[in-house]
Amino acid sequence: MNHVRQAVILAAGMGSRLKGTVDDRPKGFLHFGIKPIIEESIAKLIGIGITKIVIVTGYHSEYYDKLKEKYPFVVTIKNQDFDKTGSMYSLFTAKNLIENDFLLLESDLIYEYKALQVTQNSVFGNCILLSGRTKSGDEVYVGTNENRIVNLSKNPNEIKKIGGELVGISKISYDLYKLMVEHSEKQFSKDPQYQYEDCLTDLSNIKEINYELVEDLAWIEIDDENHFKKAKENIYPQVQKRDAEFIVSKKIRRNVLLNPGPATTTDTVKNAMVVGDICPREKEFGELVESIRKDLVQLVHGEDLYEAVLFASSGTGAIEACLTSVVPDNKSVMIINNGAYGKRMQQICDNFGIDHIDYNIEWGDPVDLGILESILSKHKGKISHLPFVHHETTVGILNSLELISELAVKHNVEIIVDAMSSFAGIPIDVKKSNVHYLISSANKCIQGMAGISFVICNKDSLKKTKNYKRQSFYFNLYDNYTFFSDHNQMQFTPPVQVLYALRQAINEYFLETEEGRANRYSELYEVLKTGLEKLGFKFLVDENFHAKILTSIIEPSDSNYNFTEMHDYLYERGFTIYPGKGAKQNTFRLANMGEIYKDDIVKFLECLTAYKKLKNIKL
Amino acid sequence: MNHVRQAVILAAGMGSRLKGTVDDRPKGFLHFGIKPIIEESIAKLIGIGITKIVIVTGYHSEYYDKLKEKYPFVVTIKNQDFDKTGSMYSLFTAKNLIENDFLLLESDLIYEYKALQVTQNSVFGNCILLSGRTKSGDEVYVGTNENRIVNLSKNPNEIKKIGGELVGISKISYDLYKLMVEHSEKQFSKDPQYQYEDCLTDLSNIKEINYELVEDLAWIEIDDENHFKKAKENIYPQVQKRDAEFIVSKKIRRNVLLNPGPATTTDTVKNAMVVGDICPREKEFGELVESIRKDLVQLVHGEDLYEAVLFASSGTGAIEACLTSVVPDNKSVMIINNGAYGKRMQQICDNFGIDHIDYNIEWGDPVDLGILESILSKHKGKISHLPFVHHETTVGILNSLELISELAVKHNVEIIVDAMSSFAGIPIDVKKSNVHYLISSANKCIQGMAGISFVICNKDSLKKTKNYKRQSFYFNLYDNYTFFSDHNQMQFTPPVQVLYALRQAINEYFLETEEGRANRYSELYEVLKTGLEKLGFKFLVDENFHAKILTSIIEPSDSNYNFTEMHDYLYERGFTIYPGKGAKQNTFRLANMGEIYKDDIVKFLECLTAYKKLKNIKL
Repeated sequence: MNHVRQAVILAAGMGSRLKGTVDDRPKGFLHFGIKPIIEESIAKLIGIGITKIVIVTGYHSEYYDKLKEKYPFVVTIKNQDFDKTGSMYSLFTAKNLIENDFLLLESDLIYEYKALQVTQNSVFGNCILLSGRTKSGDEVYVGTNENRIVNLSKNPNEIKKIGGELVGISKISYDLYKLMVEHSEKQFSKDPQYQYEDCLTDLSNIKEINYELVEDLAWIEIDDENHFKKAKENIYPQVQKRDAEFIVSKKIRRNVLLNPGPATTTDTVKNAMVVGDICPREKEFGELVESIRKDLVQLVHGEDLYEAVLFASSGTGAIEACLTSVVPDNKSVMIINNGAYGKRMQQICDNFGIDHIDYNIEWGDPVDLGILESILSKHKGKISHLPFVHHETTVGILNSLELISELAVKHNVEIIVDAMSSFAGIPIDVKKSNVHYLISSANKCIQGMAGISFVICNKDSLKKTKNYKRQSFYFNLYDNYTFFSDHNQMQFTPPVQVLYALRQAINEYFLETEEGRANRYSELYEVLKTGLEKLGFKFLVDENFHAKILTSIIEPSDSNYNFTEMHDYLYERGFTIYPGKGAKQNTFRLANMGEIYKDDIVKFLECLTAYKKLKNIKL
Repeated sequence: MNHVRQAVILAAGMGSRLKGTVDDRPKGFLHFGIKPIIEESIAKLIGIGITKIVIVTGYHSEYYDKLKEKYPFVVTIKNQDFDKTGSMYSLFTAKNLIENDFLLLESDLIYEYKALQVTQNSVFGNCILLSGRTKSGDEVYVGTNENRIVNLSKNPNEIKKIGGELVGISKISYDLYKLMVEHSEKQFSKDPQYQYEDCLTDLSNIKEINYELVEDLAWIEIDDENHFKKAKENIYPQVQKRDAEFIVSKKIRRNVLLNPGPATTTDTVKNAMVVGDICPREKEFGELVESIRKDLVQLVHGEDLYEAVLFASSGTGAIEACLTSVVPDNKSVMIINNGAYGKRMQQICDNFGIDHIDYNIEWGDPVDLGILESILSKHKGKISHLPFVHHETTVGILNSLELISELAVKHNVEIIVDAMSSFAGIPIDVKKSNVHYLISSANKCIQGMAGISFVICNKDSLKKTKNYKRQSFYFNLYDNYTFFSDHNQMQFTPPVQVLYALRQAINEYFLETEEGRANRYSELYEVLKTGLEKLGFKFLVDENFHAKILTSIIEPSDSNYNFTEMHDYLYERGFTIYPGKGAKQNTFRLANMGEIYKDDIVKFLECLTAYKKLKNIKL
């Protein structure tokens, strides 16, 4: 289930039963506190993340139209026949403004914050909110069967099993709404007063409609003078009190991401982002950043000789930082390109006018060390740096750090290792492998959140660049490094919360241990590979050169196969898969990084098997 | 209170009373589940954000030393006299490894996750965890008085008011620890068996030590065979069950940030970051980003004619993006420098080799429009762009958008407005003010989180840059813009959670309304100014040129005044203030952006008044 961002408020009614109690304003403009109840309702909707509110107006619509002027997220549409039609016709009227799942509620409700939160956070895509007994005198009882609603009635005797009372707050999926529109269109001629609740009942046997029950919920719908009095004396003060004590929190849906990062994270990493506001220039925050920098170095065993420089950027930013900061004026880099990220390095050099000598390889093929060496020999003295991608996720190939580094040492060039998708997934020892610069980001195998990238620099190499001509500002490696040294802070405002998450993610990495994480990923790969083979899938990359963190699967030639359809089927079931990107054969991709376990892969394979059978895809 | 990141586990004991029950291993290596209880304890500590764990060993220390090899966050130190000394001597032994507040716990405890969370999240800096009745036969009762602990005893008759039972989990501030070290050093000669609990009691009259009580807490300390049996049959399974249902959540401490951003945010914005993991290449996420881009434009009334381009970077990144992307090859920019951010623009141009003509003004003084015009006239035809800072937070001055824009129109140059600290705080209409590029970031007056910056571009201006020579890669404005248009996605991996927070922050801005936010900020400024004046402070910037979102206050000449001391005093009380930066007179700064209210400023002024009195500062 997605987080719903749209709400529809039904506000066409005339409130005839309230005539005499208040003036002729529409019911949403009743006041109990400072603001009219419709504005209180709007504030609560914003509080749970609603971005667009459609109000269906009718009676004295000008009141609601003024809200539209005040709030750009409010849209109004008028049910011109408001005096002759029921709530379903109002909901029908909004059909051109509804293009997604939405929360549906009535304008004359007073309710606790919790009511919206439970509905929003429900795992059910179609969900009617029920409460315990209200004794309002106007109860609509809801008949239920297990998780589903069955029927609604004001007469409790008509209901077999009463699940609760209808509150008038629901989550409606776009699919269900389309059915409601279709179904109700046929009803209006017979019964213009058709209610949306009745439409839900009518559809409940063909579409699963669920409910959430909050036994002790303070709420009331204001239809007559008694309700008004009860609201004023009793319910409204109770709502105020409970809302004041309300703590915003939610269940976190678990998604299994099989895309090549951002990866699945733990709930503790997610929650680590929720901290009291802090100025990142404070000592307390400096200590956090310092501990992260130290531990990133330790993670690749670079103690004493290496320094981590952090950037507020995606991983590409740190690549740009390295390439634009470490190459001397009159030198060239030699770039290994066997995937999109090798190619991206060439583009960066092109944009900045950095001379590069390319070793282009078909995407899916490994580096030929003989060719590599011959290029290095040919341009001896000219090449200062050899940047390459360690684990190239374009295809899932592993370019051997050890072997390439050995050649680099022999030919006296420094290496720049794009370890974006290997850092913390594959053990790396920067000292043993003679790494000069190693680049990664917070949202891959280290299992933090996106927004921070970093370069782990050999200090001697970095210090040589002190007086190099500056080619960039934000990303100059040396200047950012000295800012850390001088101020124990990042040079530019960091993504504070992402750093708290990274701190937690590193803790959890060390808890799992280097070996533990690498072994878990390997096992995930083996289970995935075996399962895919059993289904008949073929792979792009030779097992000998496989990083075992991402698998490129050759796309089936069967015309029943369609990546987008397959993706959507799996996405609905909680699994995110990823398309291919320019490899020598058409592929789709499955990564096995992140906080996922064998069980997740087993369940994924079951879903994939079911889909293959459903679509009758031949392999 | 800070989030505590260090823990100390006392693990020196011999567990003599368990001899015969298990072999001779130390008590932390008892097993009930898969891992020894010390490792289960460590995992829980990591789960609540602990980064460094000091274990004080003694008896069979080699067991614990192996943990150090496995976990880099574990440090061990041996109490060499473990067989002759008590727990306080063990804690004393760790003195060179303790440099901050810490959680203190014993190695032989089994406990619920909740125990740590309550202790970690307690508002008290010194906090002893208490439980309800355990009937363990080994109870240590804690006498309390209001929030404070008074004494401890195994004999309940010695205690006036029993607050609960001592669990053996505490939060100790560094200040308290220093007192404990000092105090206990004098005790050891008389009583080597001195316990840390007794030390706490002894100090409780000179230092406030508080407690948290969890009535129904599952926990046990394993000292003898009965405990062992009870743990195995009863407590351990109960802990397992409860931990499985445990939801990580916490109270969020409210800090009032008076630094010039990142600003104070709402809890709903903070919590909006906690979402199920999602791949930012998904359609669902694309829709989120699209809605943000649309609303950022709407916020400055740029509908139809403007486009927002987002970057994963600090605000400086977006400035660099604009300067390196929009100036034609043979043209210059004219930069107004009356603060650090104007100067930064000059530095960016220097690093990229972009020609710039400077109008340098002393920091604190306003732009002289006559001089500005004369420079524009003098270099007619040469200058393509006029970048300037709208609200220059170096001093708090407002450079008039309307007047500067008028001159720019007259002289046919485009304007680049650094609206970092005015966007969403001061109403801006990009069409009326003829803005070509307007730059801001997510963590200032819009009240979101740091990690996203953006440029709101006039589409016609932006399209002219299509074929300009590329000067950067990550920050090229046009290329990032076309990626949005073509893919409805950010070009490079965005900080996913920061965007969810921004979405929520924009919703809340629209709820407050443009006028509402501007008025709230103005009121905060007035209350602050009046209060400061009453105290005798003087201001740097002339009221006529004041942005009224940040106030530069002239530093008192009184030798009793010390910024750092004042900062620390206020920081402890929840207020973050900010030093000055290169202005024409020495200043400190107070911003009034963010989710703060009149009451906050009033309380801040009270604290400041108290501090001024305490230090006897003359103004």
